[in-house]
Amino acid sequence: MQEKATTIQSLFESLKANEDLTKKNPCLLKGWVRTNRSSKAIGFLEVNDGSCFKSIQVVYDEKLANFAEVGHILTGACVAVRGEIVLTPEMKQPFELHASEVELLGDVAEDYPLQKKRMSLEYLREIAPMRPRTNTFNALYRVRSKLALAVHEYFQSNGFVYVHTPEITSNDAEGAGQTFTVITDAKDPINDFYGRKVSLTVSGQLHVEPFALSFGKVYTFGPTFRAEKSNTTRHASEFWMIEPEIAFADLSDDMDVMEDSIKFCIRYILANCPDEMKFFDTFIAKGTIEKLEAVLAKPFVRMSYTEGIERLKEAVKKGHPFENKNIEWGMDLQSEHERYLTEEVVKGPMFLTDYPKEIKAFYMKENADGKTVAAADCLVPGEGEIIGGSQREDNYDVLKAKMDKLGNTEGLEWYLNLRKWGGCVHSGFGIGFDRLLMYITGVANIRDTEPYPRTSSNLKY
Amino acid sequence: MQEKATTIQSLFESLKANEDLTKKNPCLLKGWVRTNRSSKAIGFLEVNDGSCFKSIQVVYDEKLANFAEVGHILTGACVAVRGEIVLTPEMKQPFELHASEVELLGDVAEDYPLQKKRMSLEYLREIAPMRPRTNTFNALYRVRSKLALAVHEYFQSNGFVYVHTPEITSNDAEGAGQTFTVITDAKDPINDFYGRKVSLTVSGQLHVEPFALSFGKVYTFGPTFRAEKSNTTRHASEFWMIEPEIAFADLSDDMDVMEDSIKFCIRYILANCPDEMKFFDTFIAKGTIEKLEAVLAKPFVRMSYTEGIERLKEAVKKGHPFENKNIEWGMDLQSEHERYLTEEVVKGPMFLTDYPKEIKAFYMKENADGKTVAAADCLVPGEGEIIGGSQREDNYDVLKAKMDKLGNTEGLEWYLNLRKWGGCVHSGFGIGFDRLLMYITGVANIRDTEPYPRTSSNLKY
Repeated sequence: MQEKATTIQSLFESLKANEDLTKKNPCLLKGWVRTNRSSKAIGFLEVNDGSCFKSIQVVYDEKLANFAEVGHILTGACVAVRGEIVLTPEMKQPFELHASEVELLGDVAEDYPLQKKRMSLEYLREIAPMRPRTNTFNALYRVRSKLALAVHEYFQSNGFVYVHTPEITSNDAEGAGQTFTVITDAKDPINDFYGRKVSLTVSGQLHVEPFALSFGKVYTFGPTFRAEKSNTTRHASEFWMIEPEIAFADLSDDMDVMEDSIKFCIRYILANCPDEMKFFDTFIAKGTIEKLEAVLAKPFVRMSYTEGIERLKEAVKKGHPFENKNIEWGMDLQSEHERYLTEEVVKGPMFLTDYPKEIKAFYMKENADGKTVAAADCLVPGEGEIIGGSQREDNYDVLKAKMDKLGNTEGLEWYLNLRKWGGCVHSGFGIGFDRLLMYITGVANIRDTEPYPRTSSNLKY
Repeated sequence: MQEKATTIQSLFESLKANEDLTKKNPCLLKGWVRTNRSSKAIGFLEVNDGSCFKSIQVVYDEKLANFAEVGHILTGACVAVRGEIVLTPEMKQPFELHASEVELLGDVAEDYPLQKKRMSLEYLREIAPMRPRTNTFNALYRVRSKLALAVHEYFQSNGFVYVHTPEITSNDAEGAGQTFTVITDAKDPINDFYGRKVSLTVSGQLHVEPFALSFGKVYTFGPTFRAEKSNTTRHASEFWMIEPEIAFADLSDDMDVMEDSIKFCIRYILANCPDEMKFFDTFIAKGTIEKLEAVLAKPFVRMSYTEGIERLKEAVKKGHPFENKNIEWGMDLQSEHERYLTEEVVKGPMFLTDYPKEIKAFYMKENADGKTVAAADCLVPGEGEIIGGSQREDNYDVLKAKMDKLGNTEGLEWYLNLRKWGGCVHSGFGIGFDRLLMYITGVANIRDTEPYPRTSSNLKY
């Protein structure tokens, strides 16, 4: 059994609870050295134990038997420090640890890749396994963890059942997405383990719909894959998706849940990760907290695609410098158009609804006009689309005709049959978890939000 | 917007809180018909809305304008029922819904695959998407969802950071596991998307260790894959794994967390899924609740592999009918041996520790005896192994020699280097989530615990 150390987090919690920290003395702390400054008689170690964003200042002096050795401890070394917590209310840090003993648990070799000075995100991307020891990634992956918990807490406390949809599948929800093929025998694209051609899932939606028509409210939350060679800051080939599906809900109800769940997640992170969010707001993207508070402040505006097209046409007339000025009903909006609507017209988060059926997926509910489908994308300033959702086509004949035309009925009979086996109005949506994390933290590249990002030509670890 | 229905769950919650249910009248309920019995003047619909395990009895009579039609509503149909909640404290069910209106939302075609009568698990496996509408799978997937939440609540409330380790990888933690290869171009086992040969992960452990040496305590929880053609009730090719990793923890500390986390999960499910657990205890595996309560009742016994071998030799001498009676120090124990130790010797959950290094993985900490490693398997009566864990080799030279011998150093330098870049004593373990669900519910086949099981030659949906 190893002697249990106190954590920095527990010290800050005690402080918050107005407990007398010095009652915890003597104190043992284990962590990694961020910096070490020493002079002839005194030295200072900044130690982070990973239990929270904050580090602790360790003060050591000549009374240490190994004072000289401690003075040479390097950034990155693992140490155990024994000593007394001393309150320093007049200082930047409310307390420090006066060491009576500093033990080097794990030394660092000369090739240690992290330096004391600020390193670029690009450089850190090359040393993914070591990134979490920096402030930025310590904050980022802690928020990632809390955000995942927020997702579960929101949906579970609202009566949603969590469903693990499969990663390996013979279907393909979007129809058009580029997929990874999974094989066991290099010579044969037919996977001889399963006896058929299989690929990695691009979405759990089709698989989760039958569960919504059993449990009422369900959600998936797991990895999904796209083999698109899109070398942008927003595309990864492996990413986590949240896909709720709700029986007895139409598009309006669907948007209510989209808005409520996003607001819950933002409130949760602001409340539970204040140090991390302050760090992002200061060092990564100034104004991030203000941006999020604005999202919480008012209801999301709902605007039809048709109205959106009108607004964009007006903007072109007024001379707005879109790259693509050729605005026509029926077009697929580009990011510049979406951002104009949310940033310039609405000046806040919005839903764009009821898109032309030709540019949306086959499973979306056809509206009475025969031209549009009950789909909604959630657009936010500074980012564009962060959620896409729709009411699902629940009319067997309409859906069958569409699927027959696409040629994907075979193998998806079970999906189609939901419409004649006790079907009902139902809706759902998808949130890219990594993109949500980008939005909440202000981190600009998806390669940084994922512990080990997988992008085109990039799989180092 | 669809009119919001009351859920059966909320009715039972109100009842539990001693609220007057009749104050909720008039009541609207939406769900799926389990059974429909009707006579000339009166009828009874059993309706389940998926919000909880329990169904509600709907009573309807000739006052309904569509009484005759309602009498013909089939099992599986989706209905909306409006009416009055009537308390029936003298009956099996504490309340029922007296319908003033029954609307058929979604009819069922003649080929509806679920019947009123009891269906075999084998038959239901063939119609995976529809299984959740049966009692068994309604209970099972609800417990699965709650168990996943229990995992997150346990680790997060104990300061563990959740890490999404990658699914697509160029490494292979166990060294020997059979893996699935991921390709984009059918003619080429080199994935041209990544520019190298890649496969689906068999474990997140190697990728999560650097995070433990940054955050102190971390866990992964996600899908893992094995392409083993093991056609047993316990093997699936895709399954979810929980893999915690703890800095400053040796094997003894590791076992403390294993025991504590398993007990937390069991307590959580017994407390939060009483109806479901009662169902399993009655219809799936009698004695399940008693078995789980016994696990909670006392500390897990810890016994060394070496002592285990002695006990097994004694058992052979006494004539215990093992299939494999050839007990020798150094052997890999079979399930019959593990079960003898936990069921006959210890008569309860146990850890078997300190295995011969030759039969365990390269990353496990070599003990001072030079023969064994600091590994522990958790064995439970009725099941055998449910957790495997170990202290990790933190000595650079010892680990490098082992990896060089195995030939897996190349590509894993980043893993090895953790031992010279501020390394420390650390340990971790792995729990197969699907097997844990089997153990807790008493469900005997892994194909039933997964929403869409993927096993050898089996991928229908």
